[in-house]
Amino acid sequence: MKVGIIGAGSIGLLFAAYISRVFEVTIYTRTEEQAAQINKYGILLQKESEQTISMVSALPITEWQGTEALTIIAVKQYQLQAIIEKINHLPVMPENLLFLQNGMGHLKLLKKIRAKNIFLGSVEHGALKENPYRVNHNGEGKTNVAVFNGDGLLLHQFSASFSKEFPIVFQEDYYKMLENKLIVNAVINPLTAILQVQNGELVNNRAYYHVLKSLFCEISFILNLEKQEEHLQQIIAICKNTAENRSSMLKDIEANRLTEINAILGFLLEEAVRQEKKAPQLEIFYYLIKGKEGERGRRS
Amino acid sequence: MKVGIIGAGSIGLLFAAYISRVFEVTIYTRTEEQAAQINKYGILLQKESEQTISMVSALPITEWQGTEALTIIAVKQYQLQAIIEKINHLPVMPENLLFLQNGMGHLKLLKKIRAKNIFLGSVEHGALKENPYRVNHNGEGKTNVAVFNGDGLLLHQFSASFSKEFPIVFQEDYYKMLENKLIVNAVINPLTAILQVQNGELVNNRAYYHVLKSLFCEISFILNLEKQEEHLQQIIAICKNTAENRSSMLKDIEANRLTEINAILGFLLEEAVRQEKKAPQLEIFYYLIKGKEGERGRRS
Repeated sequence: MKVGIIGAGSIGLLFAAYISRVFEVTIYTRTEEQAAQINKYGILLQKESEQTISMVSALPITEWQGTEALTIIAVKQYQLQAIIEKINHLPVMPENLLFLQNGMGHLKLLKKIRAKNIFLGSVEHGALKENPYRVNHNGEGKTNVAVFNGDGLLLHQFSASFSKEFPIVFQEDYYKMLENKLIVNAVINPLTAILQVQNGELVNNRAYYHVLKSLFCEISFILNLEKQEEHLQQIIAICKNTAENRSSMLKDIEANRLTEINAILGFLLEEAVRQEKKAPQLEIFYYLIKGKEGERGRRS
Repeated sequence: MKVGIIGAGSIGLLFAAYISRVFEVTIYTRTEEQAAQINKYGILLQKESEQTISMVSALPITEWQGTEALTIIAVKQYQLQAIIEKINHLPVMPENLLFLQNGMGHLKLLKKIRAKNIFLGSVEHGALKENPYRVNHNGEGKTNVAVFNGDGLLLHQFSASFSKEFPIVFQEDYYKMLENKLIVNAVINPLTAILQVQNGELVNNRAYYHVLKSLFCEISFILNLEKQEEHLQQIIAICKNTAENRSSMLKDIEANRLTEINAILGFLLEEAVRQEKKAPQLEIFYYLIKGKEGERGRRS
């Protein structure tokens, strides 16, 4: 099977490195420079003290034709609009697309795509891009995948091809799968990014934990969650297990990058409006993060 | 008139320097060391490029007998409880007490005080304590004063004794006087302290301004404000006029000190409970600041 990967950030590089052990991979980059570097050096995957090199074909995104059996879209949610326009202008309709974005803000965009089968993925790995062709796999996890539209034959075949080294787990319900991760991200990301603290601080600091629970209640109410206590316990466990980690949104703010706030809290606020529910606390955090992004704009 | 001043922080030192130009002042300090330094060097008042020295008597607070015609209490709200116990155990009931605390959390404490006349003050000066006997008057302003309990004869006489150099303005309604400052503090202080930004950023950054207005609406609702637009315009004007300033709460957080959050948002949250109103956004900011204070505790 030929696999295309669009986007050569930390997740794109990580997937290219592991998938190329099983299938023939082409990775599509934003810049020609990055494609040239990957073609020259391969992708260097660092895991603990072990380093492996995967020789992968790289091309600038302008060269993508959508002819691979499966294309994995590993760009940020806020870069998706441009990719979707590209998909809809391909000469041939692509067969299978797998979208790996965080949050749920992209679901409404996916409805506009011309493609035979559309799949969704939720990535639980930790990865850090160290340079254009080098990625550090610093958090072992799994990837959940599910069918959004069309049939899942190829997705079943694809996910069954990977071992424990890089587990890809087929899920029946894409909505539950994404919702589960959204809940965690919607609580941990904005709080840590605004407070500039590590994940563990949210459960170790009594006052922060109060805010965490309060925010979680508002989210539960919007998503009409049934098993609230289970979800809360999951959030607490993740804060404890990743106590020393800085969340992706905190890292984005620190690095003056755009965050995924629209995909996460933006989606929840739209849901609140749709259901005519109030979400005063989510709204506060949405605008606080937007403001931090604005500081970034003015600084640069 | 003999005037006692309890507390030799920035406001205590500032008041001692100016009042000693008109009346005989004794300043009461927490430590014997500070009293000794003030007795040795006087109080150095820096205003722009001009420096003046005021020779003022200083004694440790343990020596205070409450015999001065007027005693000004210039400690933080969270240090007030101990002072009140001291007042209520004086051999002779003091005549006139003027309390300069921020917020409105102290009003309920003042009802328990044994004293003939109780006055309240609201300080609009900017002052920075640079060492135990040196204060920088870096923001010109005025002091509003009003009667809380008893008669205001002495307060009238006292306030009339000061010129434009250090204006003390008599106000009829102590509640409106404190409320006015509380509204400003309740919006600007927690927001700037959590976001770690200067005052001007709250109106220059569109997303932060959205949060500012949203928080102000909740406060208006709790205080049943009639002239909302006037108050909002006042807040905006202060943010613009002090655009480069770091709020007192931000400075407290940066210096790992306790903040005045209980006196400000704590008071508003109690009001919300009393009136059976919801205040989800104030509650968030209350706990975020409490959490920041908690980080401080654990760091030290």
